Amino acid sequence: MTVDRSAIEAAATRITPHIRHTPVMRLLAGDLGLPFPVTLKLELLQHAGSFKPRGAFNRILSAREAGALPPSGVIAASGGNHGAAVAYAARALGLTAEIFVPELTPESKRARIESFGARLVRGGAAYVEALAASRERQAQTGAMEVHAFDHADVLAGQGTTAREFEADAPELTHVLVATGGGGLIGGMAAWYASRVQVISVEPEGCPALHDALAAGTPVPSPVGGVAADALGARQVGALMFPIARAHVAAAVLVKDDAIIAAQRLLWDRMRLIAEPGGATALAAVLSGAWAPPPGARVGVLVCGANTDPAKVAS
Amino acid sequence: MTVDRSAIEAAATRITPHIRHTPVMRLLAGDLGLPFPVTLKLELLQHAGSFKPRGAFNRILSAREAGALPPSGVIAASGGNHGAAVAYAARALGLTAEIFVPELTPESKRARIESFGARLVRGGAAYVEALAASRERQAQTGAMEVHAFDHADVLAGQGTTAREFEADAPELTHVLVATGGGGLIGGMAAWYASRVQVISVEPEGCPALHDALAAGTPVPSPVGGVAADALGARQVGALMFPIARAHVAAAVLVKDDAIIAAQRLLWDRMRLIAEPGGATALAAVLSGAWAPPPGARVGVLVCGANTDPAKVAS
Repeated sequence: MTVDRSAIEAAATRITPHIRHTPVMRLLAGDLGLPFPVTLKLELLQHAGSFKPRGAFNRILSAREAGALPPSGVIAASGGNHGAAVAYAARALGLTAEIFVPELTPESKRARIESFGARLVRGGAAYVEALAASRERQAQTGAMEVHAFDHADVLAGQGTTAREFEADAPELTHVLVATGGGGLIGGMAAWYASRVQVISVEPEGCPALHDALAAGTPVPSPVGGVAADALGARQVGALMFPIARAHVAAAVLVKDDAIIAAQRLLWDRMRLIAEPGGATALAAVLSGAWAPPPGARVGVLVCGANTDPAKVAS
Repeated sequence: MTVDRSAIEAAATRITPHIRHTPVMRLLAGDLGLPFPVTLKLELLQHAGSFKPRGAFNRILSAREAGALPPSGVIAASGGNHGAAVAYAARALGLTAEIFVPELTPESKRARIESFGARLVRGGAAYVEALAASRERQAQTGAMEVHAFDHADVLAGQGTTAREFEADAPELTHVLVATGGGGLIGGMAAWYASRVQVISVEPEGCPALHDALAAGTPVPSPVGGVAADALGARQVGALMFPIARAHVAAAVLVKDDAIIAAQRLLWDRMRLIAEPGGATALAAVLSGAWAPPPGARVGVLVCGANTDPAKVAS
């Protein structure tokens, strides 16, 4: 199955009853101290606190339509947000869910997953180790894997974010998106298909897409820093890579300090609580790691909010 | 000066360069556990964390246009949000500001006011006592009073909230708004002018508009409960009262427990941090204190976020 506009349209039809249409907010030049206007899409207000339910619902509902959902339900590995989304979707659809998370997953995300009634299993240093553990378990139970990013239905589901963003802000010329395993930016780049310049933003500690584009193929990268629980996939997905090579205009890196500063600014000036991964795309603009060319109309996706607000607002 | 649509249009023209156009978010039936759809206007994302800059800018800019701004700047009494807005506006316009707050103003709001460079003066139990102190001081300095609600320019400024809400959600039949001194609901009711049913929501501990409508005139009411710093005006404004009698369809009261539950729900399910006063209108819908008639299309204003998130998200 190809991840293209028609797959994303089909995903939108499938998931719309289960998903929030998140708002855009147009900030004038001068706001947040920036000399140019920026349009934010507040995807952090999505169900379960991140964009992830889009892909999770599309994967599970596609399988249900095909009669391919096993009685043992669904299983997923996740740094936290995808696990919360799968747990949320499974509860909404009456399915059993098991979620494997690594040690670096913060307590706030573990609690979120359990609050949706999923069985939580901890283990392994980072996402890839949790994925390996989930696959051992999957071989025993026969549950359906809902991959965090490297599945066509997940990519198409995440791509609906761009479909909404374009409908609400058709004037944009550049859209900045944080990248982990690449499900979100892969889906969004497939939607925009170079009609809009899609800019990837990663923490310096998790440069998987930056490294893959430099190497010409997905390669293992370090996993570290403040956003590792959300963006620490070690290696981008095989399915997203050709999309990224064709339709991601640049892969920018930002420092952890810039991410934390963006988080603080979102609270101080906008009263939004974003997690580090959710503030990463904005950090590129605020820190100057990426600067718009003259005449650009800039959009930024704020994609996740699953954090302890006391840490942001102190 | 009459507070009507043309005054509100003029206010919008005046303040637009200084104000955020805040987004609306349409929640499907089933979301937040409600059996009907609800459209939220996220005015808590406004500059300075509440709707208050709309009125503050309109008051100050109108005076500047008239050449009536004294060199001693502006002075205001406030439970906190209005003070933060006046301080924010004064800084943006290069003016000196003094803000008088009562003892019940929380630390988070005092810090906000000072962060914008205003001189902060504490004293008196509640808003009316701070107002009296500010007027003693005003007589000495000659600064221009920016009243928190009972001034035509302030009402017209707050009315721009309804103008935006109608532009973005023209389908609404009912709009719920929290009431303190009545500047916001007065301005909004003047805009909607009974084309939409405007519903006032107050905490049981601060029933000023409820009591005024029952008495046929503004009367002193108790000031207490979790939202007293935002909604505890003691008595609604003289200017808003005839507007409310003509164009406010109902005045609903909610319990503090319902306000706190609405705050928690906004964080748990939507990742929004609202202060108690900001969650009060939604509390009426969630608690059943107000229920929509069949066919209603319900809008709710979420109007303030100046609180310590650690208290909301615990």
